[in-house]
Amino acid sequence: MIKYPTSNKVYQQKPISTKNRGMAFEALIDQSNTYYLENSIAVIHKKPTPIQIVKVDYPARQLAKITEAYYKTPSTTDYNGIYKGHYIDFDVKETRSKTAFPLKNIHPHQIKHLKNVHQQQGFAFILIAFKTRNTFHLLPYHKLEFYLNRATKGRKSITYEEIKADSYTIQEGYRPPIDYLKAIDRWLEDI
Amino acid sequence: MIKYPTSNKVYQQKPISTKNRGMAFEALIDQSNTYYLENSIAVIHKKPTPIQIVKVDYPARQLAKITEAYYKTPSTTDYNGIYKGHYIDFDVKETRSKTAFPLKNIHPHQIKHLKNVHQQQGFAFILIAFKTRNTFHLLPYHKLEFYLNRATKGRKSITYEEIKADSYTIQEGYRPPIDYLKAIDRWLEDI
Repeated sequence: MIKYPTSNKVYQQKPISTKNRGMAFEALIDQSNTYYLENSIAVIHKKPTPIQIVKVDYPARQLAKITEAYYKTPSTTDYNGIYKGHYIDFDVKETRSKTAFPLKNIHPHQIKHLKNVHQQQGFAFILIAFKTRNTFHLLPYHKLEFYLNRATKGRKSITYEEIKADSYTIQEGYRPPIDYLKAIDRWLEDI
Repeated sequence: MIKYPTSNKVYQQKPISTKNRGMAFEALIDQSNTYYLENSIAVIHKKPTPIQIVKVDYPARQLAKITEAYYKTPSTTDYNGIYKGHYIDFDVKETRSKTAFPLKNIHPHQIKHLKNVHQQQGFAFILIAFKTRNTFHLLPYHKLEFYLNRATKGRKSITYEEIKADSYTIQEGYRPPIDYLKAIDRWLEDI
């Protein structure tokens, strides 16, 4: 293993936060949700991955061991819950691209579900992390919809500039690491 | 197998609906949720059972076979979603008792979660089926709370009469089989 000298840091053009470096975006959201729950700010949970169970053994009393199972396609997004009486529903995405967010990252069942939630007057959105920029954005479904329509006849991604203009930018922090409910507060002011 | 004569029916004291007889209450709720979704009435889904995956094999390209996994304790209720902009969160319970609903049917993590949701101004409740009576009830969390407190020093169940008085009774139907959102409409009128 090569040990780079710490002075390498000076070659970085911009100081970027190292607080949560290397941690997957989803893990930061999970930590934020735990913080919200413990502080009675919101009740937002990640849904378990749906599994089709085929075979279960009982090697001991009270112990069920699943020995054959398969992943199923979910019918919703991964996260939902309630904040100040509002229904919240979203998925978490990250990209290594510096310039654009590719729409193929969002699956058809997720789009359909977000649209349903939006029509029921819920807060439907995606949280996007530009990993190499270390920027975080909450993009409401009604903004995303424009780019999904555009993609049917043209560009299959949303540029970083477009996301900056159409999303609520979220500052990275310590506790919670990604305070995306602040972005919801700004969204509420816009309604 | 003994085949009972159909004329046995005449011994039943009251005519009870046979529409959905024998189908588990949860399955009726799932059917109702599908109906609500397809008719754009509400977006309410059952959460997958949380599974701790230990080992995954890849017997063929694109095929992930889980060969060792275990059930985990959920941290929420089984159902949540949105109806007319309102956050909905509940669990489904059934009892064969004719006289009372035993509170041990509700697990501590479910109570805690329903309380959290209630505090965030969501619609938190349980749906109870008295199987032998074929009656269905929506009991709001704030009503349930009274009986949970009582149970700490006394009776560990809610009598049928108490449930009738404190819940919204739901009529069984055809499509959807259990139209519990009608009960939410009545609850909304009470607020």
